[in-house]
Amino acid sequence: MGKVRKLRCVSCGREYGPGELDYTCPQCGIRRGTLEVIYDLKAVKDEFSTDNIVSLPFDIRRYLALLPVDSKDDLPSLKIGGTPLYRLGEFIDQVGEVWLKDDSINPTASYKDRASALALAKAKERNVSVLTCASTGNAASSLAGLAAPTEMETFIFVPASAPQAKIAQLLIYGAHVFAVEGNYDQAYDLCMEAADEFGWYNRSAAINPYLVEGKKTGAFEMAEQLDWRPPDKIFVSTGDGSIISGVCKGFTELYKIGVTDKIPEVIGVQAKGASPIALAFKRFDGDHVTIEDQEVNTIADSIAVGKPRDIIKAVKYVHRVGGFFVSVADEEIKQAIVDLARCSGVFAEPAGATSFAGFRKVLKEGRIKKSDRVGIFITGSGLKDIKTAKEAVPVAKRIKPKMADLRYELRKSGLAKC
Amino acid sequence: MGKVRKLRCVSCGREYGPGELDYTCPQCGIRRGTLEVIYDLKAVKDEFSTDNIVSLPFDIRRYLALLPVDSKDDLPSLKIGGTPLYRLGEFIDQVGEVWLKDDSINPTASYKDRASALALAKAKERNVSVLTCASTGNAASSLAGLAAPTEMETFIFVPASAPQAKIAQLLIYGAHVFAVEGNYDQAYDLCMEAADEFGWYNRSAAINPYLVEGKKTGAFEMAEQLDWRPPDKIFVSTGDGSIISGVCKGFTELYKIGVTDKIPEVIGVQAKGASPIALAFKRFDGDHVTIEDQEVNTIADSIAVGKPRDIIKAVKYVHRVGGFFVSVADEEIKQAIVDLARCSGVFAEPAGATSFAGFRKVLKEGRIKKSDRVGIFITGSGLKDIKTAKEAVPVAKRIKPKMADLRYELRKSGLAKC
Repeated sequence: MGKVRKLRCVSCGREYGPGELDYTCPQCGIRRGTLEVIYDLKAVKDEFSTDNIVSLPFDIRRYLALLPVDSKDDLPSLKIGGTPLYRLGEFIDQVGEVWLKDDSINPTASYKDRASALALAKAKERNVSVLTCASTGNAASSLAGLAAPTEMETFIFVPASAPQAKIAQLLIYGAHVFAVEGNYDQAYDLCMEAADEFGWYNRSAAINPYLVEGKKTGAFEMAEQLDWRPPDKIFVSTGDGSIISGVCKGFTELYKIGVTDKIPEVIGVQAKGASPIALAFKRFDGDHVTIEDQEVNTIADSIAVGKPRDIIKAVKYVHRVGGFFVSVADEEIKQAIVDLARCSGVFAEPAGATSFAGFRKVLKEGRIKKSDRVGIFITGSGLKDIKTAKEAVPVAKRIKPKMADLRYELRKSGLAKC
Repeated sequence: MGKVRKLRCVSCGREYGPGELDYTCPQCGIRRGTLEVIYDLKAVKDEFSTDNIVSLPFDIRRYLALLPVDSKDDLPSLKIGGTPLYRLGEFIDQVGEVWLKDDSINPTASYKDRASALALAKAKERNVSVLTCASTGNAASSLAGLAAPTEMETFIFVPASAPQAKIAQLLIYGAHVFAVEGNYDQAYDLCMEAADEFGWYNRSAAINPYLVEGKKTGAFEMAEQLDWRPPDKIFVSTGDGSIISGVCKGFTELYKIGVTDKIPEVIGVQAKGASPIALAFKRFDGDHVTIEDQEVNTIADSIAVGKPRDIIKAVKYVHRVGGFFVSVADEEIKQAIVDLARCSGVFAEPAGATSFAGFRKVLKEGRIKKSDRVGIFITGSGLKDIKTAKEAVPVAKRIKPKMADLRYELRKSGLAKC
């Protein structure tokens, strides 16, 4: 990782050598001392030519010049990223362009694969063969899935209430899974203690500075898919604050190396029942982030985070790019799952559709210009949580295998005159 | 569709003009009169240059020259196909190369998207705006998902016992869903009658000749991803017989236009409890296919077909390419889900892992040479049926959020000395 110049504490600004620390700034502690990976952008600029990268496969390996690994072979063998970007016809009268980045199309069906890839590469670099992760579900199933074809072992801590599909993925991939009788925040703290005691490499959100490096690749791809003309406004569902930090960092780095000519406003969308980052952003004075944790209550399990671990980065980065935060109610999220699927063909999990709910809210509030180009990240597949999806729609009509029954049902529901 | 020369009955060989019929040969009837789409391969040869196609996106649109549509804009806007091909390290001592084609990476998470794309294009061509489909689940959710962002309406018939995730997809996408109290074969017959009575365009397996045209694109991609050097043996899970017919046809067409230098043996893998095609193949005399339907009983819902509709094509095509059929027990399928996930990171639904189970069986029987290159199609995501997956693995360990509890569990399971 020759082009990584240093690790810098996001709170106090202290700087450390690239390999000096694994996790957080010892001066500021685990919560406030999250680290930023700082590159020698001059060196990167030479390596990252948009002409050069087209010879690389369209997935996260393509952006090697801006990743903290030396070779693309350090990254997992599965195809991570390179996900489709779709233009939505739906809002054509109200907004210039609306683009959906469908990150349910990833090996384990969520955006988290981008980050797990980096965790695995870093563990390998350190010759560690056991990884651990606390997760609402997706980060863990991602780590377990990408680790499956390797020699690496994984120890996973998820809330016992995590959707069954995510727990099933973990078990199938062969992870050692602990379903913690508590919420995500408690699972997180337990995982931290365990990693410390057993020397496991920790892929839990925020404390590991390399995760954001994987997460920024979604921004790189969106920019490239739009011929390096990024949208004006970007919507990102927000729980721990890591994905949105990655998205901000990604667009910022592209701008700094001169590949793009602007940094979009990035808008974080939280569930109303789990919105501590939105609250902290409101109170932010441009310098100190005031943290107030919450009891959470939302159907969007992936972002049901009351004690967000990447809150400092999320608040500071979004502020820096001129973005903001909004919160949406669970009912808006449920409706967004349905409406998104029907206008795009993309079936998202609740947290995946939260960004779309936020976009509609901001649009309704008149905060999007007619000329704006908008990008929305869809971060996880609806197949991850069908229980919630089913609550949003009526059940299927049951009929006997007889035409008479079918005709009756069609008539009753006004679908056919017969 | 200028390069489509004719439609030919797979049983009697009668030929029809390209637009003359929508479904089956009237002389041979619905079951035996399935049609083949025959191209002017000389014209195709000129258009389909491997140099030409690299300028097209890597998805099914890339192979336009060998598809029965005129323009890539006739195909749906979602990214269909272009799925990853992974080399498996696992069997390196026993087999030359083993390649997995991961078709769970599709918009609705199954191989069926390839076929639904063609059905939608054909319905559009005929100015029909209502489509119908009988399905074990994937074909329907695929049709509903790809139709969602269009003006098209869909009427779906699935067995009421279909996995919940597939029914949830249908409802979310806004299809009109009829959960038929019967098996797939009964749902199929009802759908046929309804299509006939209401004039809906029918995307049900086999009767629609264009579905196989979509399904062959998996073979095109696998060949291209291996630099036009197809494997020696290909394994495909088989229910109705359409995917395997498509795979055979795809590899055959590539050979005929001179892009590849051989046609692989294609091996169909059926579940023991639903293996009428394997039986018919055993009895096949090279001329007449004897059909004997079955009562079915298998966990692999997507291929739980007792009355396979593409049986004639499947038997004849597999015979022609020198392949064969094998059957595997449900227990082998369950184990294959787990072992496949752990050696590849690909989590497949039961029918998706059936091909892998078949490969292992054939390998064990000594029917694969040490020098053989093998290709295996994974046709659907494990997230489609987590109920079955969970039966294959122990449950997660439940613990309180306390280190003492964790230490106790780790000690008990021999995972750590603490």
